[in-house]
Amino acid sequence: MRIAVINPNSTRAMTETIALAARRAAAPSTTIIACQNDDGPASIEGHVDGALAVPGLLRAIAAAEDDGADAFIIACFDDTGLDAARSLATGPVIGIGEAAAHMASLVARRFAVITTLSCSVPILADNLARNGLAALCCGVRASELPVLALEADPEAAGRRISEEITRAIDEDGAEAIVLGCAGMADFAAELAERHGLPVIEGVAAAIKLAEAAVSLGLRTSKLGGYAPARPKPGGFLRAAGPFVP
Amino acid sequence: MRIAVINPNSTRAMTETIALAARRAAAPSTTIIACQNDDGPASIEGHVDGALAVPGLLRAIAAAEDDGADAFIIACFDDTGLDAARSLATGPVIGIGEAAAHMASLVARRFAVITTLSCSVPILADNLARNGLAALCCGVRASELPVLALEADPEAAGRRISEEITRAIDEDGAEAIVLGCAGMADFAAELAERHGLPVIEGVAAAIKLAEAAVSLGLRTSKLGGYAPARPKPGGFLRAAGPFVP
Amino acid sequence: MRIAVINPNSTRAMTETIALAARRAAAPSTTIIACQNDDGPASIEGHVDGALAVPGLLRAIAAAEDDGADAFIIACFDDTGLDAARSLATGPVIGIGEAAAHMASLVARRFAVITTLSCSVPILADNLARNGLAALCCGVRASELPVLALEADPEAAGRRISEEITRAIDEDGAEAIVLGCAGMADFAAELAERHGLPVIEGVAAAIKLAEAAVSLGLRTSKLGGYAPARPKPGGFLRAAGPFVP
Amino acid sequence: MRIAVINPNSTRAMTETIALAARRAAAPSTTIIACQNDDGPASIEGHVDGALAVPGLLRAIAAAEDDGADAFIIACFDDTGLDAARSLATGPVIGIGEAAAHMASLVARRFAVITTLSCSVPILADNLARNGLAALCCGVRASELPVLALEADPEAAGRRISEEITRAIDEDGAEAIVLGCAGMADFAAELAERHGLPVIEGVAAAIKLAEAAVSLGLRTSKLGGYAPARPKPGGFLRAAGPFVP
Amino acid sequence: MRIAVINPNSTRAMTETIALAARRAAAPSTTIIACQNDDGPASIEGHVDGALAVPGLLRAIAAAEDDGADAFIIACFDDTGLDAARSLATGPVIGIGEAAAHMASLVARRFAVITTLSCSVPILADNLARNGLAALCCGVRASELPVLALEADPEAAGRRISEEITRAIDEDGAEAIVLGCAGMADFAAELAERHGLPVIEGVAAAIKLAEAAVSLGLRTSKLGGYAPARPKPGGFLRAAGPFVP
Amino acid sequence: MRIAVINPNSTRAMTETIALAARRAAAPSTTIIACQNDDGPASIEGHVDGALAVPGLLRAIAAAEDDGADAFIIACFDDTGLDAARSLATGPVIGIGEAAAHMASLVARRFAVITTLSCSVPILADNLARNGLAALCCGVRASELPVLALEADPEAAGRRISEEITRAIDEDGAEAIVLGCAGMADFAAELAERHGLPVIEGVAAAIKLAEAAVSLGLRTSKLGGYAPARPKPGGFLRAAGPFVP
Repeated sequence: MRIAVINPNSTRAMTETIALAARRAAAPSTTIIACQNDDGPASIEGHVDGALAVPGLLRAIAAAEDDGADAFIIACFDDTGLDAARSLATGPVIGIGEAAAHMASLVARRFAVITTLSCSVPILADNLARNGLAALCCGVRASELPVLALEADPEAAGRRISEEITRAIDEDGAEAIVLGCAGMADFAAELAERHGLPVIEGVAAAIKLAEAAVSLGLRTSKLGGYAPARPKPGGFLRAAGPFVP
Repeated sequence: MRIAVINPNSTRAMTETIALAARRAAAPSTTIIACQNDDGPASIEGHVDGALAVPGLLRAIAAAEDDGADAFIIACFDDTGLDAARSLATGPVIGIGEAAAHMASLVARRFAVITTLSCSVPILADNLARNGLAALCCGVRASELPVLALEADPEAAGRRISEEITRAIDEDGAEAIVLGCAGMADFAAELAERHGLPVIEGVAAAIKLAEAAVSLGLRTSKLGGYAPARPKPGGFLRAAGPFVP
Repeated sequence: MRIAVINPNSTRAMTETIALAARRAAAPSTTIIACQNDDGPASIEGHVDGALAVPGLLRAIAAAEDDGADAFIIACFDDTGLDAARSLATGPVIGIGEAAAHMASLVARRFAVITTLSCSVPILADNLARNGLAALCCGVRASELPVLALEADPEAAGRRISEEITRAIDEDGAEAIVLGCAGMADFAAELAERHGLPVIEGVAAAIKLAEAAVSLGLRTSKLGGYAPARPKPGGFLRAAGPFVP
Repeated sequence: MRIAVINPNSTRAMTETIALAARRAAAPSTTIIACQNDDGPASIEGHVDGALAVPGLLRAIAAAEDDGADAFIIACFDDTGLDAARSLATGPVIGIGEAAAHMASLVARRFAVITTLSCSVPILADNLARNGLAALCCGVRASELPVLALEADPEAAGRRISEEITRAIDEDGAEAIVLGCAGMADFAAELAERHGLPVIEGVAAAIKLAEAAVSLGLRTSKLGGYAPARPKPGGFLRAAGPFVP
Repeated sequence: MRIAVINPNSTRAMTETIALAARRAAAPSTTIIACQNDDGPASIEGHVDGALAVPGLLRAIAAAEDDGADAFIIACFDDTGLDAARSLATGPVIGIGEAAAHMASLVARRFAVITTLSCSVPILADNLARNGLAALCCGVRASELPVLALEADPEAAGRRISEEITRAIDEDGAEAIVLGCAGMADFAAELAERHGLPVIEGVAAAIKLAEAAVSLGLRTSKLGGYAPARPKPGGFLRAAGPFVP
Repeated sequence: MRIAVINPNSTRAMTETIALAARRAAAPSTTIIACQNDDGPASIEGHVDGALAVPGLLRAIAAAEDDGADAFIIACFDDTGLDAARSLATGPVIGIGEAAAHMASLVARRFAVITTLSCSVPILADNLARNGLAALCCGVRASELPVLALEADPEAAGRRISEEITRAIDEDGAEAIVLGCAGMADFAAELAERHGLPVIEGVAAAIKLAEAAVSLGLRTSKLGGYAPARPKPGGFLRAAGPFVP
């Protein structure tokens, strides 16, 4: 099985980190095709960056599907362009944000999300409301750690995230933690041990859900909201695929 | 006051129809600057077209704001790119879909939306859920009339919409009707008279709400979800404006 | 266009303050007819005062409509008697509470309401839930400033409101503020500047929405919930108007 | 124990019917004090009638409490003036609409409401949403029987209600039926037998809930939303009572 | 009328406490049949204990119904096995948790629940969401008092509960308190007086609701969710009763 | 990896069907340990059967965990005893009902569930509401096919399910179908092809989600709602495991 993992931004270091996490999570028989959106912004912080990333993201997905990819991961916790990607692709498309939330809901009754900056909080909260999992989310908390700080001083970053987890448990009743940034993946195991609760990282969760969907023979529905766009001037010139059961 | 009305697609005839509706609705002291997204798809049908339209839409908004526009209308009933546009602009940004729903909620306790094709139903339903007005919406119905059919045989189109309004009243308890496509604007008055209930068209509604917001001195918040994006490679090179009270 | 602004209570000073705010917000071509409910309580604090105010409020609306008013503003943040007024009037009826919330939802993703006393909090929260905008409201906060304190010591009052705005931003993630009392109108501009976010006052918001509705030719639906009451002994002897498209 | 049952309208025949139903339901040790609102409209159909009924209803409640009533029933299925009555009274106040819904939720997972005219549907639906029981209500259906038709031709009326119950079971999955009009009370037993499901009438349900509340020593909270109004000119001159545990 | 009050656990002292509270609340003409589930766990703390208690609880209900009981109280605040009990019994079945919440919603607009340990919070919150009354619940708070502590040092326990009530009023806007454990019943009156708001205990509330339901001739619906199970090997060998109107 | 698949009922034929479906779905490296609850009812139809099945189900899960199982599938579409099982087990526990809904939400915006008998509809609807996925479910439909009919006349059963899928698409806007009974698994592929949309079966979905959870190192949280029960007389004598990160 071939899973395309698309970093919607153009920063190579992030693509490599994401690819590493994806390969670590993938089954031996899964081939990870990691790519990035060279036309996208250097990072995705907020709605404008997200919107600018989508056309390149869609092109990357179309190219990957033409190359035989069976499923697609959007490797940004905002689940950037998820609806459009589902309308375009024949195979399943999974966002890392929704993937982490789905997995959390299988091992806890209430989970909290710890993200980087507070500007992401409304985006993540809206996404959770939209896919229904807000019913199990007891809080989206910002660590106020910018992505770069995660790499620059991992020890301090780990402490900051850990503090926020303590608050999520004490103040919100969190029973599991979703790490709301791919850059936090390396902290997951240690935080789970320190706090004694499941800590879930999105890239790995998405890989496993994509493998699950492909194994089940599932493909994206082409009825209703994800009906394929017709090719048109200024639109997508490659016709979106039909539903293939 | 200068209001920029942006047609997110590249079809000139639609831009002209929208501009006409906007000018008809505008106050004498309002200048309507109608433009279109020449880089966008010929029409917006579903998520892929919508996503491809957003970068050009954002550039059009930035250009209009640089030219002194005070507010911005996104003239597609899907409210394409609304969050990104709000993160970019300093002035208020109004989508014609949300505008019609807000106005309907002022004159009726339950309203129905009549749109063109059924592929739009989930998009409109999601938008209403997201802005809370789903609480007052008793149904989103597809007339299964493609946009072009509205112009090709207006009489037949009017009959089709009228039939669906009858159903919305009888089956859903609709007390007002929102016409879910700019191309239906010319039917509004006759349908209101025939059915004896308010019939609301989005372009005009959006113009009046934009005038209201500008008159009140309101500008888009720059805290939280609409925090301005930082200029970055591959991102928006023009800095989004700060909040100007 | 003639807009009747009805103060549901009998205190002349409030009527004058409201009239002033209404005239300041109105377009040059709008005539503001400010009146008060001489049969109502001296102020509206809670459900009992509200209920006692409604019959006089309805008579004032009927009289204003007979005199040619095109739209009606209920100038109490509780939106006192809104459903009954809509059932009675032919023209649109706007409450200042809902008006402020609708406008806030156009310029921010999450807004907080700052009201006077905590006894109003459940009433405002129920109103927001009822019109769907609770989905965007991150908190209704009481300043514990009685209405009279606003006029007696405006400087102290402004400080108190400002403190509560700081909390709404920090603790609730508020991106815009709705001032939940007509008496707070004069603080709006300064608070917006100090806190760097939109601050919305209800009387002005309602005037602009009423102008918008009248310009669009909208009148209150007479189907379903707002069906006109039949004249009857002990009821309203003037027949409620039919729907006039 | 003394329970005041207030008919919010001024029609003596209805008051007598309600009193009869109340006495039939009451425990032997309960004294029913039935009264009517002579200042109210002849019947309550929609929001305007409801609003005009409230001041007289409040005076009736205050008088009954001064005379030693321990609890108060608002005998209109719209729960007319319920919040104001709770703010005024010291004892518990129960609306017959909410009472029937609470009892239905104890014997079925989904219940439907069958009311008289379709103009009542939005009012009842809003009430259910407000008290949370909309979560268990699978439909509010209008029989389109005016109140008078219930008495004029009871056989035909019974058939009409029965037809609507069949639809509620078949189309909505109703497991119990709430009769949405005091005038339907006499049909309850026969309909329960014919359709083989619980059929609940509001006056009797409210009497039992009022007896329950008084037996438990419960009185209306005076914190928050039901804080007592201060006596004021044009307001209620009798001070609302404090909370008496 | 005969009401069976079933303690789902096997601890005799609790059964006696519950029986005492039930008899204190019951009308003179009501016979309380208190029993316990000798096959159940010694106490119910969490989902496992609850699940293990249900078969014995169901047998106790079946035996009580065979012995002529008219209604059934499940005397655990978790409403253990409520759906199964309703599917089994012909008469009404009331859980003490839902009973307290229903009664609270009749005397306050927002209520808080104070329970024993934090492990119960998600169970109670889920129950409230399921029966719709979460709409009126402003918080479920744990006192962190184990059941035994309530009896071991009642004075200290009362202080602890009182502190949590103060927080519920100040931080959550609680207008009434539901005591989320049968062992807290004896504190109710004093806490109501000290804090000046209604304090509701579940056993008594359930007795009054059961009396109300039986007086109204209500029995559990046998349509839909509570359809009787067919007798089967390994299932319940006594057929669940049909609906008897 | 070892996954225990527990049929909560005692019918061997069903256990074998479930085991077959599980083995077909499992990865080569996964060992499926299928077992059944010999103490349970012959089938699970409604709440009583469900409740009686849980103690044996829990014992089966405990035994399987002692034998080294890494994850647990509850192979009944009602997700019987899911909360209790999660409180007991250290490894992840997945119900086949929730599993199918989670997978459906990854490939469609709206899904419908087609179940056997209408008595299951409220149970499934409540489960979806509880885990948040009701937000994406456009209907739970009963085929009125008893489980045995599926095996007795598969051709007729397939036609009946197919008819209901057509209605779900036409009337509810379904974009994917969840088959709400393990006995329907064999129809999935043909129905997907005939109707051109994803058709999801629960046993396979649960296997893939369990494999995903185990691969990710996830175990059930032991904070809050799933805190382990303490061993006690009449309770579970084996201590529930602690959280093992």
